[in-house]
Order: sequence, then structure tokens, then C-alpha cells
Amino acid sequence: MPELPQNLCQEECDRHWMQRCLDLAKTAYGKTSPNPMVGSVIVQDNRLVGEGFHPQVGQPHAEVFALREAGDRAAGATLYVNLEPCSHHGRTPPCADAVVAANVVRVVVGMIDPNPLVAGQGIAKLEQAGIDVTIGVEEEACRQLNEAFSYQIQHRRPFGILKYAMTLDGKIATTTGHSAWVTSPAARSHVHHLRAGCDAIIIGGNTVRRDNPLLTTHSKGDRQPLRVVMSRTLSLPIEAQIWDVDVAPTLVFVPSGTNPPMQKRLRDKGVEVIEKQNLTPTEVMDDLLQRQCLSALWECGGMLSAQAIASGTVQKVLAFIAPKIIGGSAAPSPVGDLNFTEMTEALPLQKISWETIGSDLLVTGYLH
Amino acid sequence: MPELPQNLCQEECDRHWMQRCLDLAKTAYGKTSPNPMVGSVIVQDNRLVGEGFHPQVGQPHAEVFALREAGDRAAGATLYVNLEPCSHHGRTPPCADAVVAANVVRVVVGMIDPNPLVAGQGIAKLEQAGIDVTIGVEEEACRQLNEAFSYQIQHRRPFGILKYAMTLDGKIATTTGHSAWVTSPAARSHVHHLRAGCDAIIIGGNTVRRDNPLLTTHSKGDRQPLRVVMSRTLSLPIEAQIWDVDVAPTLVFVPSGTNPPMQKRLRDKGVEVIEKQNLTPTEVMDDLLQRQCLSALWECGGMLSAQAIASGTVQKVLAFIAPKIIGGSAAPSPVGDLNFTEMTEALPLQKISWETIGSDLLVTGYLH
Repeated sequence: MPELPQNLCQEECDRHWMQRCLDLAKTAYGKTSPNPMVGSVIVQDNRLVGEGFHPQVGQPHAEVFALREAGDRAAGATLYVNLEPCSHHGRTPPCADAVVAANVVRVVVGMIDPNPLVAGQGIAKLEQAGIDVTIGVEEEACRQLNEAFSYQIQHRRPFGILKYAMTLDGKIATTTGHSAWVTSPAARSHVHHLRAGCDAIIIGGNTVRRDNPLLTTHSKGDRQPLRVVMSRTLSLPIEAQIWDVDVAPTLVFVPSGTNPPMQKRLRDKGVEVIEKQNLTPTEVMDDLLQRQCLSALWECGGMLSAQAIASGTVQKVLAFIAPKIIGGSAAPSPVGDLNFTEMTEALPLQKISWETIGSDLLVTGYLH
Repeated sequence: MPELPQNLCQEECDRHWMQRCLDLAKTAYGKTSPNPMVGSVIVQDNRLVGEGFHPQVGQPHAEVFALREAGDRAAGATLYVNLEPCSHHGRTPPCADAVVAANVVRVVVGMIDPNPLVAGQGIAKLEQAGIDVTIGVEEEACRQLNEAFSYQIQHRRPFGILKYAMTLDGKIATTTGHSAWVTSPAARSHVHHLRAGCDAIIIGGNTVRRDNPLLTTHSKGDRQPLRVVMSRTLSLPIEAQIWDVDVAPTLVFVPSGTNPPMQKRLRDKGVEVIEKQNLTPTEVMDDLLQRQCLSALWECGGMLSAQAIASGTVQKVLAFIAPKIIGGSAAPSPVGDLNFTEMTEALPLQKISWETIGSDLLVTGYLH
């Protein structure tokens, strides 16, 4: 537990404890979906008397663990939580009620509930009980932590992340299609961690044929994301790694009536095969929403990534750039045809950030 | 003139004054070629008593200006200079002799003369006169400042810099070839400044036809670099901006016997046209060496940049990356065919650095 430095003003204290909430929340990274990551601490006279986080669906919310640990010391204390306490009876009773019952006198909230239908009701309940409520402490960090949760609940579609790895001259493979490896081991580990935080990974048939990827987190303790293949022909090798559903579930989307014998062979292996009248990124995302996915990671080639971007199913872009030159005017690049003819039509990324991962650069930005 | 902070140790003082030398040297950025950029300061009892820089070819060296300003106060003082004082009679008398004559007692040198035939002779002359010499203060920064000078003198070939601007998905233009503008105005200004520091800019015929570039520094006070066009056919528009030799000189290389009428039309405009048996980047660089160019900036398209890389005439790569997505599987990318089939063949860049320029990212690295 971190020590609180002396002589901080109220605002600095609030930020300090909210950061602790975020750290606690991240303890359950990759385990809470379709719920958000939430951490909570209870502070009495500048001393932490209880803390907790939401470990996974079906388990109590963060505030409940913090209140349990605090016990009687919650009375007269301040409770910090990165997301507005719930006010409704869901899988668990409303947290706002528990906070009121514990005689907490002040609640500091990182961000209000992103669901526009319920936003603010938990806070209203607290204020009606005479509790002093502060909203928006470390709000940007809180929003970013649960960006997929917020997006999905507001737009009724999984948060789409496009990830690709290219050389400094913009190539994801050589002219012959060889791509192992563009980036360093550190960057590849980073991708494994990223997968652990996503509910689904989507690729196309080309990627299955060319790269034969496993698409797992490469770590046994993790909850493995759902592996999704969009294939127009189902002309895919039956011995591909991705059909091994013992390591992670696999779901294949095909146009209706495509290659029934192959469909059967895949089903026999335990792969779920779904026929779609229109095989589009939007249709796939709609299906993933029904499965309560918060996020989907596009790890596909240029053709499918262009379709994903064009259909609005990519919200965030993660571009790994390896500091090397491979060349090749016909070598594939990360995004296929978007039918733009003028450079001014290019889609700008917003909230850009850059970081080095091993010897590579990771550029992150948001579309729209 | 910067104030020297109190209580610095000798080493910190040395670094401080060497930084001052570098700042002075950069005053003549773009004006000293084929000479290096050199600055010098003279310090007596921790106080600066003289400083100077080499302004351009034919003018005195930096040490001479510093000694002149110091006058009698040079006796017993320390002289700092980012490059070893010369020991030979060139366009000006040897600086080492002048330093000895001024009774300087200590000389701090950033880096020794990169010319392997003369390296260390200036220092030897100083030491023979009983002067205490320290070598290698802020050496990396000194080397970088004159990297083109050092490379050219050691390898007898201009230092080649490949510069390109691409979108985050690796494209230098749209599928239709439209490229105005990939990067932000700040990045384009940075390129103009870069041009001012190079002796030549090389493009191919495709770039003349597609972009009709002016290729100047866009600043009247600057010495304009020599604009070089490599053209296999000379099928170029006669009204291209680059033929206006009133703003900057232009030199065209063509295979022997190519399009004599067009050669004449260009010569009539004041353009220098040179026929080459083999029109290769190496031949062009050899010619530029004869013209005492220290550096050449490749601002060409993918086909020529691949040839330049393959022929070893690119030492440094500057990749501007704009945070936007244009897409296009047939849209051009910065480097054409290098005939690599495996990703492991990719040419790694060394000494990578990243910086943001306006809204864009600039990645810098070295080949080999």
C-alpha cells in the first residue's frame, strides 16, 4: 500500500487516492468483461482503511470489498472509486445503497456511468443521503481505463482496435508475403498483453493461410480472447493452429452456403461456424455485441482492415513501427483500399501518443 | 553569452564551454561547406574572453576569431573548439600555430580531425609546444554536427540522406499519386531547413512529372542547394519549376545520347546536363564529390530511393510520419524493390531517435 506524502492539499490527496483506485482496478485487467475495471479505497483521516477491486463478473463490485475491509471505520470516511457507484439491482445489490448504509460522508468519483440511461443516478442517490460527492478526479485516466466499456455501452457495438506492425517504410511483409518478424520480441509480448485485455480478435482467411497464427495471449493464466475468422471461401488449411479450440475458442463467419463440407469439418473440431447473408465487419461486430464483447482487436491484413475502417468498426489504431527498411513496391502495407484519391481525404488520428517498446515505436491514436 | 553556473567541476565546465562552441558553430549552418562547422571559445579564470566561428570557405577558422577577440587575454587561458585545430597550410595558415603563439596553456577539443591522413597532427603540434590537451568533450554531439563532413572525408563520397514523408499506414501518396500534403506545415518547414544544410538534393524524373517541386529552402537568405535530377528518358515537362535556375542551380543526369533536343532546351534555360554511360546513384555521387559536396539529400520516390539504398549511397534516413490513414494497396510507399524475400533481410537502422515536429513524428536512423 502506497504511503501518502505529507502536506498535500485536498486536490492532491484526491488524485493520489484515485490513482490507487486505478491501480487496484487494473489488477483485474482482462478478467472483468463485460463489466468495467473498478477499484475503490476508503480513507479515514488521511489513512487508508479499506480497499478493493471488482475481480470478475458475478463477483461483488469494488466498493463492496472496500467497505467490507473498512468495517466500522467507513463511518465518517471518504470513499474513492474510479466509476460512479451503481444504483440499480443487477447481478449484485446497488453499491450506492451500501455506501449510504456505511455512513460514508464523502465520495470521490473518477467518472460518471457512461451509460446515458443511468448516468448520474448513483451520484443522485448519494447526494440525496447527504453525502458530499466530488466528480471528475483523474477523469481522463479513468475514461481511458474503461474506454472499451464506455464505447460499447454508448454505441451498442464493441470497441474496435486495429493493430498492425510495419517496417519504417510502411510494409507488413515482404513482397513474397513473409512477415516473421516485423517487430521485436518486446513488441510481440506487448501484443500478447493487449490480447488479454480484448474480448475478441478478428482476422481474415488470408491471415490464416499466410501466417497460421495462434492468436492467444501466450500465457496460461489468462482468459483467452475469442478468435474470430472472417472467410469468404472457407478455403483454409484444416491443420491451422487456430482450429485448436483446446487453447482458446474459435468462431468463423462465412457467407451463407459456403463450403458445407469444410463447415462440418470445422464444427467437428469444436469450431463454431456462423453463416451470414452479408459477411461484413458490421455484421460481425453485431454478433460479438450479442456475445457481450466490449472490445475486438483487428489483427488482419490490409484488405480486411480497410473494410473495418470504412465500416466504422475501428475506433483506435495501434501501429507498431520497426526501425528497419524492407522495400518492395508490391509488398503489402497495413491498410488496403479506402477509395481516397486526394491526400486531404486521409483519416486523421486524434489523441496521438508515441512510446518505444523494445526497439520499436508504438503509435496510438483514435479515429473520428 | 551564457552565464556559467557556479560550483561546477572541471568536467562540467568543459562540457558547458564545448556546448557554447557548438552553438557558435551552428550559427553558420548551411554556409561552411565544404568546410566543417566549427566554433571556438577562450576562457580565462572561468570567464569567456573571446569567441568565434568559421563563417564560410575562404574566411578564417573559428580559433582565429576567438584569438583575435581575446587578444592578450589568451595567454594562460583555455581554448575550446569542437574540431581539432588544423596543422596544415590550406586556404588559411595552421590554427595550431596561432594557438601556440598566443600562449594558450590548455586546449579542449571535441573531436579529432576525421581525415585519417591528418588526424591528431594538430593535437601533436599543441602538445609538442607544452599545451595541455583534452580530447573528446561532448564528442557525440561534435561528431553529429559534422557527420556529413566526416563521412565525406573518410569515404570520399557525399553523405547520403534519404528523406520521405508517409502516412501512418506507410503511403507517400494516394493510389492516384496525389501527395499534397502528407505532413503538416511545421514538418515541411523542417525539410526546408534540412535542405539549407545539404549541398545537393536529388530526385528522379517521376518526381518532376508528378510533384513539380521547387526544392529550395524557401528562404531568400539561404545558400540554395544544387538541385539534381536523374532522368532516364528526359521526357520531362519543359515548364517544370525546377528548370528556373534563377532561384537555384539545377543539374540533370541522363544516359548518354538521351533526347538531345530536350538536352539543348534545358541547357538554353541554364540547366547543366551531364550524360553518363551508366546512370546510377554511385555515378551521381561521384560527380557530386568532384563538386565538393559534403551531403546529398534524396527526396525521390520509391524506385530511386531503393536504388540509392541498394547502392550504399544512403547513410541516414529521415522518415516523417503523419498521424493519418490514407489506405490503398497500390498507393506508393517510400522504398521500392530491394529484392528481399524474408523479413530477416530487412536493413536495420541504428542510433534511432524520434521527435515530434508539429503534428507529425520524425524518425531518424542510420544505415549500416
